[in-house]
Amino acid sequence: MTDYKVIEVKESILEDNDADAEVLRKELKAQKTCLINLMSSPGAGKTTTLCQTIARLKDEMNIGVMEADIDSDVDAATITAAGARAIQIHTGGMCHLDADMTRQGLREFGTEDLDLVFLENVGNLVCPAEFDTGSSKNAMILSVPEGDDKPHKYPLMFSVCDVVLINKCDTLKVFEDFSKEAVVEQIHKLNPNAKVIFVTAKTGEGFDEWIDWLRGQVADWKN
Amino acid sequence: MTDYKVIEVKESILEDNDADAEVLRKELKAQKTCLINLMSSPGAGKTTTLCQTIARLKDEMNIGVMEADIDSDVDAATITAAGARAIQIHTGGMCHLDADMTRQGLREFGTEDLDLVFLENVGNLVCPAEFDTGSSKNAMILSVPEGDDKPHKYPLMFSVCDVVLINKCDTLKVFEDFSKEAVVEQIHKLNPNAKVIFVTAKTGEGFDEWIDWLRGQVADWKN
Repeated sequence: MTDYKVIEVKESILEDNDADAEVLRKELKAQKTCLINLMSSPGAGKTTTLCQTIARLKDEMNIGVMEADIDSDVDAATITAAGARAIQIHTGGMCHLDADMTRQGLREFGTEDLDLVFLENVGNLVCPAEFDTGSSKNAMILSVPEGDDKPHKYPLMFSVCDVVLINKCDTLKVFEDFSKEAVVEQIHKLNPNAKVIFVTAKTGEGFDEWIDWLRGQVADWKN
Repeated sequence: MTDYKVIEVKESILEDNDADAEVLRKELKAQKTCLINLMSSPGAGKTTTLCQTIARLKDEMNIGVMEADIDSDVDAATITAAGARAIQIHTGGMCHLDADMTRQGLREFGTEDLDLVFLENVGNLVCPAEFDTGSSKNAMILSVPEGDDKPHKYPLMFSVCDVVLINKCDTLKVFEDFSKEAVVEQIHKLNPNAKVIFVTAKTGEGFDEWIDWLRGQVADWKN
């Protein structure tokens, strides 16, 4: 009926998540699979961003998506329809993924032949930021309707991200209070090295810079 | 400099949060203070909703707001300016409030003379749903830009709420995919007794029903 697997992952009993994440990262480096941990609030546009990304990159590399969700599997179905391999991870109510849960998902998924794997984390700006998943890089999406004050209110999330996509820029005309300058300033105050890219996932506007960044990550990870 | 207190609350060491919540609820009932636990994703409009609510009710009852935030205190400043008493609770990175943390906040706040207290919980659709805070009722806000599929993806949150405000309805013209009928159907499938009210907190549109619901809760709590 479905062409993606659904698995339940269990909370890790390992005490040292950071060490576990380092081990996983080394394994992924050895097999040349770049893992991007994608985080955001609920409804910021993670799945739409991934569909748009897959459409642009699927002819030049092998892409997989691990969808973490508390219970449903609508996202894995959407991703499969977009043309990438997907696996749905049910977290059993857990609000984040740690490195061991990520590894359980990767093992079931089978990622040896994949150049790029996205981990679509649970929609949550608090807990996922606290756990290194073992990913190559952390990416997050902030959508314009959420407001430009979010870096100030969820500082850890913005501090741990290598790249921040500001999504739903087509709604800037409706959300007139949102200042692009203010959000960039706040992000760089927390994290001077974060790359900030303004996009509209629904239309693909602004995606060239994001796609180039991803190409660079995949190429770097193979060296 | 500020006319609101900022306190740090510690994670509870008590094992039975449900029992602790029941005790707190009885204390609040005895002192006739109705406590509404307000939850949502980041940026759904909790603070704007509270400001609009305070403006409409402050002349007929004594209102207080406990702002839970990981680190900042912008919301307490906004609430104080709107004309209600406020206290800022810093959760020290915690992703939710439990009953004991709520009690720590209430004790510092001093609520004996208040008819209605709002607890603005941490912006998160996962963890806050798992902890009974001892509130009289649970309320949540889902904003239109987040999408109409959120009840399906965060079922526990919608299951524990007595009332759901669908906010930012002025943006329905931009977010054309959002179906009001679909969201009501999904919420009632999870929680047949949940009251669903469509509002725009920025303008106050739809607020009469919400304000009437609050008046009813405060009156019931005093009996």
